[in-house]
Amino acid sequence: MDMTLFAPVRFEEGKLLILDQTRLPGELSYIEMKKKKDVWEAIRRLQVRGAPAIGIAAAYGAYVCMKENTALSYKEFYAHFLEVKEYLNGARPTAVNLSWALTRMERILQKNKEEPLEFIKEQMLLEAEAIRMEDERACRSIGDYGLSLLKPGMGILTHCNAGVLATSQYGTALAPIYVGQEKGYGFKVFADETRPLLQGARLTAWELVQAGVDVTLICDNMASMVMKNGWVQAVFVGCDRMAANGDGANKIGTSGVAVLAKEYGIPFYMCVPTSTIDLDTPDGAAICIEERNGDEIAEMWYAQRMAPKGVKLYNPAFDVTAAKYITAVVTEKGIARPPYAQSLRKLMGGSL
Amino acid sequence: MDMTLFAPVRFEEGKLLILDQTRLPGELSYIEMKKKKDVWEAIRRLQVRGAPAIGIAAAYGAYVCMKENTALSYKEFYAHFLEVKEYLNGARPTAVNLSWALTRMERILQKNKEEPLEFIKEQMLLEAEAIRMEDERACRSIGDYGLSLLKPGMGILTHCNAGVLATSQYGTALAPIYVGQEKGYGFKVFADETRPLLQGARLTAWELVQAGVDVTLICDNMASMVMKNGWVQAVFVGCDRMAANGDGANKIGTSGVAVLAKEYGIPFYMCVPTSTIDLDTPDGAAICIEERNGDEIAEMWYAQRMAPKGVKLYNPAFDVTAAKYITAVVTEKGIARPPYAQSLRKLMGGSL
Repeated sequence: MDMTLFAPVRFEEGKLLILDQTRLPGELSYIEMKKKKDVWEAIRRLQVRGAPAIGIAAAYGAYVCMKENTALSYKEFYAHFLEVKEYLNGARPTAVNLSWALTRMERILQKNKEEPLEFIKEQMLLEAEAIRMEDERACRSIGDYGLSLLKPGMGILTHCNAGVLATSQYGTALAPIYVGQEKGYGFKVFADETRPLLQGARLTAWELVQAGVDVTLICDNMASMVMKNGWVQAVFVGCDRMAANGDGANKIGTSGVAVLAKEYGIPFYMCVPTSTIDLDTPDGAAICIEERNGDEIAEMWYAQRMAPKGVKLYNPAFDVTAAKYITAVVTEKGIARPPYAQSLRKLMGGSL
Repeated sequence: MDMTLFAPVRFEEGKLLILDQTRLPGELSYIEMKKKKDVWEAIRRLQVRGAPAIGIAAAYGAYVCMKENTALSYKEFYAHFLEVKEYLNGARPTAVNLSWALTRMERILQKNKEEPLEFIKEQMLLEAEAIRMEDERACRSIGDYGLSLLKPGMGILTHCNAGVLATSQYGTALAPIYVGQEKGYGFKVFADETRPLLQGARLTAWELVQAGVDVTLICDNMASMVMKNGWVQAVFVGCDRMAANGDGANKIGTSGVAVLAKEYGIPFYMCVPTSTIDLDTPDGAAICIEERNGDEIAEMWYAQRMAPKGVKLYNPAFDVTAAKYITAVVTEKGIARPPYAQSLRKLMGGSL
């Protein structure tokens, strides 16, 4: 499979292109990002989503917003950049990669403040490229480490989409599956459809089918039965922000899957590039959980409204899986085990 | 609230009317059942659903199918009845109330075999009426017993629909909520939307809104977060067949809710009229779980197909919640506690 055929973020011939994931699986179409509002909306409206992909889109997006900037001084240029940074940073609150990538871009400005603005712009593009390439390598490495936890023929359950469409390539949670597929492991994957936005049905099932992986789509509430049936030997999920103590925010419903996995004695692995680990956030309680419009539950996708008028709607986009439910954290630098307060810090320092 | 306004099964002026629940919440319309195929399809297609309501519909349905029967002898009449019974019984496999109600109707024939056929037909109608009225009383009683487990202001989570629309009146799992509502308990209800057929969104949320109950609709995968937030003090669900050991089959996803409730220390109550307790089924493993068409997951309700071509679909309609997760079983005869092998048998014998 040539994964670049559906990379969520492409930068080609000076153009930033975002795969409009709200149109999958029916339509594969890219939209050009020309202004900061385009980038903000693409992130806000989930045309691009998944923590690493959001970071990559924001990095290129910041460059695109600044490349034709006509500031006369570094000070002016920097002020304009900060506006862009703050604006894009407000698109979504939970995934740390957004602010992480924008902060990396800011450091490029600061480091090169004595240089000509055109040089700074070039450096910004190189930094965005670096963020993307580092993510590619990180995902491949997560795939290799993750695969070391698996045996051929295993059943793997995943929630939401932490695949190619959420990253630069391979994905995080799906990376071990793709690397295994290359090696003929013959996994049987169960994809939670992941309500309300159906990333599991529309994205995960779609990209796994493209890759020829054996994938069965289930409703979120069927995970318990699939596990009880003995069909699942490992759970792999992604992460949007992991706190210093190992609590991990991920797509709503992940914490429930983790509880089920524990109850049924199935290892639960969170695949987390170090760009998603936020040592400045002490624990899950300190992570801001985005709450989205209830109409995503009541109306979106449907031919007609499915909820009665007058009902309240609660639509948190993420939940926090407590560290105690996470068997191991798979990063590009290695596999962290509990206690995470120690293992994550050590790993972020460079070696496990 | 006048619950008879949307009773799922009505028998009026000699006509059997079924509320077409597939059209809720948008449209409240009844369909007349004239032939056995109408009844079979109404059950099969979930125009009428919920274990008690299926039993009531089947009882009246059997009468409607036989009332104009022109058999010349009891033997011929009985043979025709057995055809109807077997046919209707095949509509759905999991809820025991279907075969339970049809067996009750059969006993009416057997008991009156020496009587004129017109008399037998009258007795069949009376038996169907009795089944409905017993269910009304059972639901009210379940409401009273269930309410004894609750305090004003509590948060209650429910899955699927075990309300008025699943029974004759009050419901099973929703009965304590309605009785509490009459008494000003001010519960806060969380309704799982219950994929794939959205009985929580379309039916439970709808009927609770009609009754003025404070109800918040969530996606199934949000139950873990709602519980973790401390918003739920009790879970109430219905049941389609409870085995002798207390294992209970109910709408897919119930077992997952039970695991979560256990993990978060929340009592999990199954509300089960004794018509749903099947002492001939030793345990959950012996319950036949209906598997339905995968297109219910991939396509139904949607404006367009949401799953990619080539993906496998797994769509079990029910799952079994092991007795060990059930804090208590609320019946019309009282509240059964573990060990259920003893308490259910004692209760079915007449007294707890």
